[in-house]
Amino acid sequence: MADAAFDSSDAARAAGGLPHARTLTLPGPFALRLGGSLPEVAVCYETYGTLNASRDNAVYVCHALSGDSHVARHDEHDAPGWWDILVGPGKAVDTDRFFVICANVLGGCRGTTGPASIDPRTGRPYGGDFPRITIADMVAAQARLLDELGVERLHAVLGGSMGGMMALCWAVEHPERVDSAILLATTHCLSSQALSFDIVGRNAIFKDPNYNNGQYYDREHKPDHGLAIARMIGHVTYLSDRTMSRKFDPDREHPRDVAYAYEKEFSVGSYLAYQGGRFVERFDANSYVALSLAMDHFNLGRDHGGLEAAMARVRCPVLLASFSSDWLFPPAHSRRMADALLARGRRVSALEIESDCGHDAFLLENDLPVYGPLIEGFLNRPRSCPDPCSPPPQAEPAANVGLRADEPATTNVRSIFYANRLDLERIEELIPAGASVLDLGCGAGQLLSRLRARGSGALLGLELDPVAITQCVARDLCVVQRDLDRGLGVFRDRQFDVVVLSQTLQAMRRPDLVLREMLRVGATGIVSFPNFAHEAAVRQLLETGSSPVTEALPFPWWSSPSIRFFSIRDFEALCAQLGIRILSRIAIDSATGRQMHDDYNRRADMAICVLSGWD
Amino acid sequence: MADAAFDSSDAARAAGGLPHARTLTLPGPFALRLGGSLPEVAVCYETYGTLNASRDNAVYVCHALSGDSHVARHDEHDAPGWWDILVGPGKAVDTDRFFVICANVLGGCRGTTGPASIDPRTGRPYGGDFPRITIADMVAAQARLLDELGVERLHAVLGGSMGGMMALCWAVEHPERVDSAILLATTHCLSSQALSFDIVGRNAIFKDPNYNNGQYYDREHKPDHGLAIARMIGHVTYLSDRTMSRKFDPDREHPRDVAYAYEKEFSVGSYLAYQGGRFVERFDANSYVALSLAMDHFNLGRDHGGLEAAMARVRCPVLLASFSSDWLFPPAHSRRMADALLARGRRVSALEIESDCGHDAFLLENDLPVYGPLIEGFLNRPRSCPDPCSPPPQAEPAANVGLRADEPATTNVRSIFYANRLDLERIEELIPAGASVLDLGCGAGQLLSRLRARGSGALLGLELDPVAITQCVARDLCVVQRDLDRGLGVFRDRQFDVVVLSQTLQAMRRPDLVLREMLRVGATGIVSFPNFAHEAAVRQLLETGSSPVTEALPFPWWSSPSIRFFSIRDFEALCAQLGIRILSRIAIDSATGRQMHDDYNRRADMAICVLSGWD
Repeated sequence: MADAAFDSSDAARAAGGLPHARTLTLPGPFALRLGGSLPEVAVCYETYGTLNASRDNAVYVCHALSGDSHVARHDEHDAPGWWDILVGPGKAVDTDRFFVICANVLGGCRGTTGPASIDPRTGRPYGGDFPRITIADMVAAQARLLDELGVERLHAVLGGSMGGMMALCWAVEHPERVDSAILLATTHCLSSQALSFDIVGRNAIFKDPNYNNGQYYDREHKPDHGLAIARMIGHVTYLSDRTMSRKFDPDREHPRDVAYAYEKEFSVGSYLAYQGGRFVERFDANSYVALSLAMDHFNLGRDHGGLEAAMARVRCPVLLASFSSDWLFPPAHSRRMADALLARGRRVSALEIESDCGHDAFLLENDLPVYGPLIEGFLNRPRSCPDPCSPPPQAEPAANVGLRADEPATTNVRSIFYANRLDLERIEELIPAGASVLDLGCGAGQLLSRLRARGSGALLGLELDPVAITQCVARDLCVVQRDLDRGLGVFRDRQFDVVVLSQTLQAMRRPDLVLREMLRVGATGIVSFPNFAHEAAVRQLLETGSSPVTEALPFPWWSSPSIRFFSIRDFEALCAQLGIRILSRIAIDSATGRQMHDDYNRRADMAICVLSGWD
Repeated sequence: MADAAFDSSDAARAAGGLPHARTLTLPGPFALRLGGSLPEVAVCYETYGTLNASRDNAVYVCHALSGDSHVARHDEHDAPGWWDILVGPGKAVDTDRFFVICANVLGGCRGTTGPASIDPRTGRPYGGDFPRITIADMVAAQARLLDELGVERLHAVLGGSMGGMMALCWAVEHPERVDSAILLATTHCLSSQALSFDIVGRNAIFKDPNYNNGQYYDREHKPDHGLAIARMIGHVTYLSDRTMSRKFDPDREHPRDVAYAYEKEFSVGSYLAYQGGRFVERFDANSYVALSLAMDHFNLGRDHGGLEAAMARVRCPVLLASFSSDWLFPPAHSRRMADALLARGRRVSALEIESDCGHDAFLLENDLPVYGPLIEGFLNRPRSCPDPCSPPPQAEPAANVGLRADEPATTNVRSIFYANRLDLERIEELIPAGASVLDLGCGAGQLLSRLRARGSGALLGLELDPVAITQCVARDLCVVQRDLDRGLGVFRDRQFDVVVLSQTLQAMRRPDLVLREMLRVGATGIVSFPNFAHEAAVRQLLETGSSPVTEALPFPWWSSPSIRFFSIRDFEALCAQLGIRILSRIAIDSATGRQMHDDYNRRADMAICVLSGWD
């Protein structure tokens, strides 16, 4: 990963070593996924905090390509860790509460067995003979480490980039040991574009005359230039175009005079020279090749008969966070992973964080105010669901969803917020206990929380607002960030008993398409909306000649979130045209809370309809 | 640039040479922009078609980094050219009509003087001693070539990528010789990200042990691996993530067995190996360094006291086309160039083409149906404006803009199209002859054409639809693609006498912001919109309880382009709130074409208002 600044702590750390690290040698043979084995594996790791008596507070942190076991400072005298902003006492990953473990990965060069390690069978470094390893092998070594540490289950496993691949592999290959997984800026399979940059980097290493097929440890010169070139390419891919412009455009043609012998015609060139030159001082080219090949060959779908089949193995809730400007592990990949989990009814929450910082965002402070609370909320959420992984039942026709006759007494509060609460109360009444529910535009999970408190089937919310999503996650509700106007393609026909769209249809570009989609994925749908033909609105229009502003339509015409204006009758006509049946309709005067039966299209300012698109 | 397929014509071309190319030696000394000179410059060029008697049909084509003079086939026996899809008899750049010239650039390695050429002073190749050249030097050599060919003025200069930089340089530095310029997928200054990839590529060349400071021509080995690495990096940047996925994901881990000794673990790796290996067979590493440095140091703003000042030198109409997935020369750069031209009142049209093909799009057939007609229309447009470059007058208060009393006789055609025509007729009447006009949502230029026919000041349209933009360009109207909801930040206060927004306000997310902006950049504004309080609409709502569908509001509520519903009175209230004065108001019943004076908010279904935000 790119360092946040020219002056990182790498040198200090490399010089001082890792004084808090311990090394555990796992006796072999350590069988490898692609065949062959290692005679033994040394694992260099660090821990933070204390494993509690019930041994259920362990959090495993997986590092990225160039990381190591030193995830955080152990004390104020310690060298900075690579994730100090997130991990430590009182931080999002709170080491006062959790027992945090991080080990250098298999194949690495920071204490754990890798190509530079001595092969006990020959007494010489493995070098180019180090066997091909996989992400799964790295995770297997971590699992063996946990065995030795007496940690049977992980409260959570988390990681970003390559670390996210490992966390994902943990959840898929060791589901019985993982209680939750946090995947940041990662993918189930690198894109061909991302792959390309790794390939060119490796070619630069392979063609460095000092590479010598990886047998260079006893030589005077190492393939430093090849490794530096690979690192420079990597660096560019970790940043975003915007970050680079902001950082380097102002003094574009005024390079700094760094000590490394690479082109220094441009500001960004001196930065790359520095980063490339520095990297070879602390990293081994063979490890770079081994780890990048492991990343590049990581292809979860291929290994498990398809991505959905792989995700079906997951038993724990998964939190996915991606960053909008990350073009190396783009948000689309996180969406694909979320979709596969959703398709198999797995518990997943997902947020795409608006960020300028590119792939490195997960290591930087800039977006910490967003992903910090998200992770903290997820780690500390109450465990409210008895069954964390209950796939929704296969398509069954809607059962007892319908209008209840009894109307609760209502107060006389006159506000849109009151109307909204009223709306949710009514909708809750319409949903049978035990139903699985998809809430479109779920906000902070008000309705979903109520439903769960009553007892429900699988619950899922879709929402756009990051703050609301973070609140849902902290409440142990599953919520995925989605723009409803893009459809619900990820869900199966009738995947949910009920799909709810509360006070949102009027803000959709294409209400017809949203309705059709929600009644495809739901056996029934419940929609609430303001009635534009309400007498108060029409009277205003008629008497004042102005676009009405009412309790149900409270915004001025030029800045309203509502962009569609329709009456209950309009809605009914659209349903008829779409072949959607209205099973029941509650037309309400929100000022009084009363249900209107006669002349409802004139007398009600809000309607709630229960719908079905199925025969 | 990336080749469209594994099997390109490079080998055939290199083997067969360039049989139609001629070489002209310009006697020196040829002074260079950054100092120093070349004792002589040989220019290798090809021409197509015939220079006409009035010598006004010459089109100069500038090639990109790895291109050459062979832009197109000369006949069916000829090797393919790099832009055969665009240039040839009957094609967009029609060689039956135009005299097309293309020369290998200064610094290149395809016949024109470059680092591999013999320095007549030493009798040996320049190698690493080749002086630093610039884009301006390349253009200067082209200008000298034109002198020799007897071409004083160019009907057009066009190019993409580095070729676009040259075309831009032509327009800025030789304005008296250029009648129009077409800039594709280019920039006035590379981003730091794009720069980075060039820098890493050059570092790979410099660190190749066979580079030897560029003195390698008499050696057995050349810096082939360094050049191949540079080319591989370049290749990735020429494609888009989506193109790469489509091309390489299906057989991701099944590389082809290509003959070049680079990593072949992945499909995309074998492609890069092929492209890198092939490139070194036809290109010289020193040329790669020289040309890429010229591109990287191209910084039009720096050289001319700011980008706007540079663009102020342009005298000809400019056509800019960028491609949405081009992340190397991104659309934002074309927008910046267009903005600078607009800020100085220059004649510019600009289109961002929706494309999956990345930077290479301008060389590929995929988007030819869009950029082909655009270029063809621009090259063949009638020259309707006597003064192609008339900066709009500095801010002056609106003069005689206002309502005319006489109402033309109208027919009784009942259609929205009729209403639209009626609308334009009225608006045209409201605009004084000679006024400069900005038409927001100008469509195919119906109003602007009428205004020009009458005689007008500077005219400019903003539009989203690419087909409409192409039609405008073919009519010699200036039109820039813009989303009005993003504001009009590029324009100065009162840059135009009149800004028109015809039947578009109701489709805006934030009508208030659009109004404020249009009345900032216009001394006056003219807005037309449907009246939602028209009696027919209100009656429908009242009588049927349904959202009205009328002549002025012809779309169903769920799919209408209109997302804001307001009456004439609403509009007036908003103007009052924004401090905008309504200078005059025409309220029309579009069914009869009659203007309504009494009770207009009820009786008119459409309104046209003349506004001012200035005292």
